[in-house]
Amino acid sequence: MKIYGDIQSGNCYKVKLLCALLDIEHQWIHVDILAGETRNPEFLAKNPNGKIPLLELPDGRCLSESNAILNFLASDSDLLPKDNFQLAKVHQWQFFEQYSHEPFVAVARFIAKYLGLPEARRADFESKQEGGNRALSVMETQLMKTPYLVGDKLTTADITLYGYTHVAHEGGFDLSKYPAIQSWLGRIASNPKYVGME
Amino acid sequence: MKIYGDIQSGNCYKVKLLCALLDIEHQWIHVDILAGETRNPEFLAKNPNGKIPLLELPDGRCLSESNAILNFLASDSDLLPKDNFQLAKVHQWQFFEQYSHEPFVAVARFIAKYLGLPEARRADFESKQEGGNRALSVMETQLMKTPYLVGDKLTTADITLYGYTHVAHEGGFDLSKYPAIQSWLGRIASNPKYVGME
Ligand SMILES: N[C@@H](CCC(=O)N[C@@H](CS)C(=O)NCC(=O)O)C(=O)O
Ligand SMILES: N[C@@H](CCC(=O)N[C@@H](CS)C(=O)NCC(=O)O)C(=O)O
Repeated sequence: MKIYGDIQSGNCYKVKLLCALLDIEHQWIHVDILAGETRNPEFLAKNPNGKIPLLELPDGRCLSESNAILNFLASDSDLLPKDNFQLAKVHQWQFFEQYSHEPFVAVARFIAKYLGLPEARRADFESKQEGGNRALSVMETQLMKTPYLVGDKLTTADITLYGYTHVAHEGGFDLSKYPAIQSWLGRIASNPKYVGME
Repeated sequence: MKIYGDIQSGNCYKVKLLCALLDIEHQWIHVDILAGETRNPEFLAKNPNGKIPLLELPDGRCLSESNAILNFLASDSDLLPKDNFQLAKVHQWQFFEQYSHEPFVAVARFIAKYLGLPEARRADFESKQEGGNRALSVMETQLMKTPYLVGDKLTTADITLYGYTHVAHEGGFDLSKYPAIQSWLGRIASNPKYVGME
């Protein structure tokens, strides 16, 4: 099993973290986005959407979208609830992440950390703060009630949202305003099989 | 079972269409976003993220995120593959929709149809065209190979992407450039239980 990714990307790191937690053996193939490696014909044949992470099975079948990969790799593990409604809650948080969290938190981090917050992108960076804080507040509301996003147990929803939340400060977000999130981050990082981003 | 939504929103319409296809009885509660009804305390208690669609079960439990609702309502139906990899492909397309399709296609439509394409939003509207066309091309590539997004059979992934694709022309997208998408749209709309957006 091959995983194409860049560990500095939260979307790719999620998959790395899940593989560590579940002891999933894999070959990690580093892809350099800035060198155009997601847009060359060989890569586009594997993922026409030209994005990492990408999972390639030994028989050549490919799967893209970080959260789809997480759930696929976690099928039959304890990280996915058996109950239909609980499972739907996992999906709810994962769609929330892609729509209401990542486009703010990850993009602000990208502008600040990788582009060095140039003046031309400052308005863009600022415009991500409100949405990012709203997403963090939605998480805080839940994590004040339950230790993990979908209740008492770690699920793939937590891994999904851990990806960019644990580096949200690099996007200008002040996590000290979110104590329940901070405890949750600590809970995840204390897992004996935990691996960090770099 | 109650569904809070606005049928003019593609995210809400997806749920309406699924209920029609699966004969799922429900009470549809119209929510007026512009009147602030997604931001009042009662609604925020049901969905702290303040968005529709929202599903409320008879016991009061709530589920948000259109695609999570679709999969929950379709659990045990023919619209979800039993095979883990095929199921992961459904999820892949649904995450693709939320991240690479909806933010372009739906937002362009919103600016053109609901805001009337004011001069102040023209640059924003134009900026959505490239990403929207890229997403449509990714779908076209798949639909040239298989009648539905995940193979021979209709799945919730098709309903997810039908939502905004069938009204993409309202966002300035020329669907005549995508013949495989056009056939697929026709295939879905010819279902005897099909319901339209209005
Ligand atoms: N929704 C996708 C997003 C993936 C994504 O945006 N990947 C970025 C790196 S974080 C990428 O590959 N960008 C390269 C490109 O778009 O050319 C997922 O969750 O996997
Ligand atoms: N990712 C969400 C998006 C839902 C969404 O953006 N809903 C809009 C209407 S299409 C909404 O409720 N907006 C009101 C608001 O944000 O206050 C889903 O798929 O359900």
